[in-house]
Amino acid sequence: MQQVNLGMIGGGTVGGGVYQALQRNAELLAARLGLQLRLRRIAVKAFDEPRKVHIPRRLMTTHWREVVEDSKTDLVVELAGGTTVARTMVLAALSRGKPVVTANKALISAHGPELFEAARRHGTNLYYEASVGGGIPIIKALREGFVGNRITHLYGIVNGTCNYILTRMKDEGAEFGEILQQAQAAGYAEAEPSLDVDGHDSLLKVGILASLAHGFWVAPGQVYVEGIRQVTPLDIQFAGILGYTIKLLGIVKRVGARVQASVYPALIPDAHVLAGISGVYNAIFVRGDVVGDTLFYGRGAGQDATASAVVSDLADAALDLRFGSPHRIPPFQPYDRAGVVLPIADAVSRYYLRLSVIDRPGVLARIAAILGQARIGISSVIQPEGHEGESVPLILMIHDARDAAMGKALARIARLPAVRETPVMFRVEPLD
Amino acid sequence: MQQVNLGMIGGGTVGGGVYQALQRNAELLAARLGLQLRLRRIAVKAFDEPRKVHIPRRLMTTHWREVVEDSKTDLVVELAGGTTVARTMVLAALSRGKPVVTANKALISAHGPELFEAARRHGTNLYYEASVGGGIPIIKALREGFVGNRITHLYGIVNGTCNYILTRMKDEGAEFGEILQQAQAAGYAEAEPSLDVDGHDSLLKVGILASLAHGFWVAPGQVYVEGIRQVTPLDIQFAGILGYTIKLLGIVKRVGARVQASVYPALIPDAHVLAGISGVYNAIFVRGDVVGDTLFYGRGAGQDATASAVVSDLADAALDLRFGSPHRIPPFQPYDRAGVVLPIADAVSRYYLRLSVIDRPGVLARIAAILGQARIGISSVIQPEGHEGESVPLILMIHDARDAAMGKALARIARLPAVRETPVMFRVEPLD
Repeated sequence: MQQVNLGMIGGGTVGGGVYQALQRNAELLAARLGLQLRLRRIAVKAFDEPRKVHIPRRLMTTHWREVVEDSKTDLVVELAGGTTVARTMVLAALSRGKPVVTANKALISAHGPELFEAARRHGTNLYYEASVGGGIPIIKALREGFVGNRITHLYGIVNGTCNYILTRMKDEGAEFGEILQQAQAAGYAEAEPSLDVDGHDSLLKVGILASLAHGFWVAPGQVYVEGIRQVTPLDIQFAGILGYTIKLLGIVKRVGARVQASVYPALIPDAHVLAGISGVYNAIFVRGDVVGDTLFYGRGAGQDATASAVVSDLADAALDLRFGSPHRIPPFQPYDRAGVVLPIADAVSRYYLRLSVIDRPGVLARIAAILGQARIGISSVIQPEGHEGESVPLILMIHDARDAAMGKALARIARLPAVRETPVMFRVEPLD
Repeated sequence: MQQVNLGMIGGGTVGGGVYQALQRNAELLAARLGLQLRLRRIAVKAFDEPRKVHIPRRLMTTHWREVVEDSKTDLVVELAGGTTVARTMVLAALSRGKPVVTANKALISAHGPELFEAARRHGTNLYYEASVGGGIPIIKALREGFVGNRITHLYGIVNGTCNYILTRMKDEGAEFGEILQQAQAAGYAEAEPSLDVDGHDSLLKVGILASLAHGFWVAPGQVYVEGIRQVTPLDIQFAGILGYTIKLLGIVKRVGARVQASVYPALIPDAHVLAGISGVYNAIFVRGDVVGDTLFYGRGAGQDATASAVVSDLADAALDLRFGSPHRIPPFQPYDRAGVVLPIADAVSRYYLRLSVIDRPGVLARIAAILGQARIGISSVIQPEGHEGESVPLILMIHDARDAAMGKALARIARLPAVRETPVMFRVEPLD
């Protein structure tokens, strides 16, 4: 049986997971693939790092170049993380004509085009299924399963930490900060949570998905982002009364000739399958012009889910090596040279608006007048009963409006004397 | 740009859908694949059949051999349906070394091993993504996305007609027969519905999925099947009270050294993501030992969803032709020579039992005694209040029991004088 020699860089969580998966299912993999994946060498930061998964000392080296430069390494797996040394490592492997498998979304986001070009130039390939959606084979689905489709809409819950926090906030009526603390204690959130809760992790994934769906490279800086810190139990509750659930949503949709690529907390209809995705799970809803509506669900992170995706890429890469078809599916096929991202100011959506107003006659009329002057329509209002002179919440559901127009109107509303606190605004995605 | 010439057999619903998809997204496909898929010829039953999609007369022939034997046809798409002539057609193409793409689950079920062997012998390949789950790329997910996983559990809602009927029965509290009639009038069910409602369509799909998941061929005759005709609004209602939804479920799970492969209406927990799959949609839940829990959702049938899967296979087949890698992923890789299907008599599950009993003292005790003698435990009982001497429903939830033991006990219970009507029994799948 033919053998493909793997060299791995990174002996941390994901590295341990890949090592374990390759060990556990070695025979099964060999039987399914008709070839043997043999792990020759693993470059680690230090031999004695604490590891959940035991890696034999004889496989380890602390010099990544030994892995990449070893003439017997057919295929390199980059699981070191980061974008600086990782870039050097991946370029070093590609320049030797060695295909690379990576789980590094930050690297692909930051240096994708350069790495893809290096792979092309050196007649090899770069695989990155594990960079988005953990164990969910979403990149394979987009590139291969839906190759005959224009992807008109893609909505993704792609950050498990945020979905866990929002799910618990809804279930328990609890504050963001409280659940975040508990999530940190339980290991579902990082000590430094901003990468997750401010939407930056989701943004990287959305940029990659948008690029694959639309055939032009969407750099991370082009993806509009808002995180979930401003979501309150009150908003979750009012959204519920209106039949919606608040989710941190990655949004990729074609709007005329442009593509919206955004991440923000959005109200989505309770009846939609995405609203039911709870806890740390991820789900990606894809609408194709031929296939219609589809959804892919699974664990979006963690040692094992990510390892599953890495092993899938290793299998593809090994088969491409065996059959001499390194370019069979290139890492990225740009085909829309005119593709541009829609600036968020031009995005049109519905809005949920929560104001804190002094309960006195004429307040709603003044707010409605400001929106009316901006030609922004109100579709419904919830004004809980209060006592005159008290501060009460006022919820407005807004018809389709341009982001820029909405922003201006909101600034005017915020300056009204009867409006206390900064207005809270979320977009509503009907997903229809 | 390289060109791959397609010959298609079948100009009906799916054929029309594939033709349309290839026309509509021709440029996109060429740009993504780096090659041109050119439809040379379509064999139809008759030129003048009524068609939703117009196919130009110059592409049509009524002689399928003209398509298969044309030396310029690189790749054959079989969409004729059936298992007799279709088998001849596919074998004729394979014997000429031409790869075949088919959407024909009946053909794959009935003649899979023979066709796979023919493909191998003639150095070519057979692709059948569209045979299961319509537009959902589930075969690609199982074979490629989860190649590094042992698939421990697979639960599928794989028949849209049944799911549509069960969803409406639940929403409206209506009888099976009534909804079936309406579904037939609306085109969601066939005039002859037994293929769907008796579970035979699901069974073929479950056989294919079980084979791919476990590496030995599960013939359709080995899949245990029950349909949904016996499901009543009363059962749906009692299941709801207990926190369950009734779904026609395809079940593939490893039980020791054997594999259970079944289709039956089962009570599944309301909180599980599968319980929320409504209407004509399909969903397949897959648990892998590395990836954990995943779900794939989409339209499981219909012209366009099926066409999406066929085009995906055409793309794979065309790339394999271009790169000379026809065996890259063989149509079926048997690797478990010792694999056997668990006879349903040996399957262990929980049960929901609905009896119609005369409401008088001692009835429950006699039933409990019969179950106790068979060492079958009762986990809960619902006995709606009635008037003594009247016939009332009695619901028993049964702990894990062997099918054979349950069947024997049930036969004894059915013979009790206090038990009127035939007992109703469904399995409960906790999906945990």
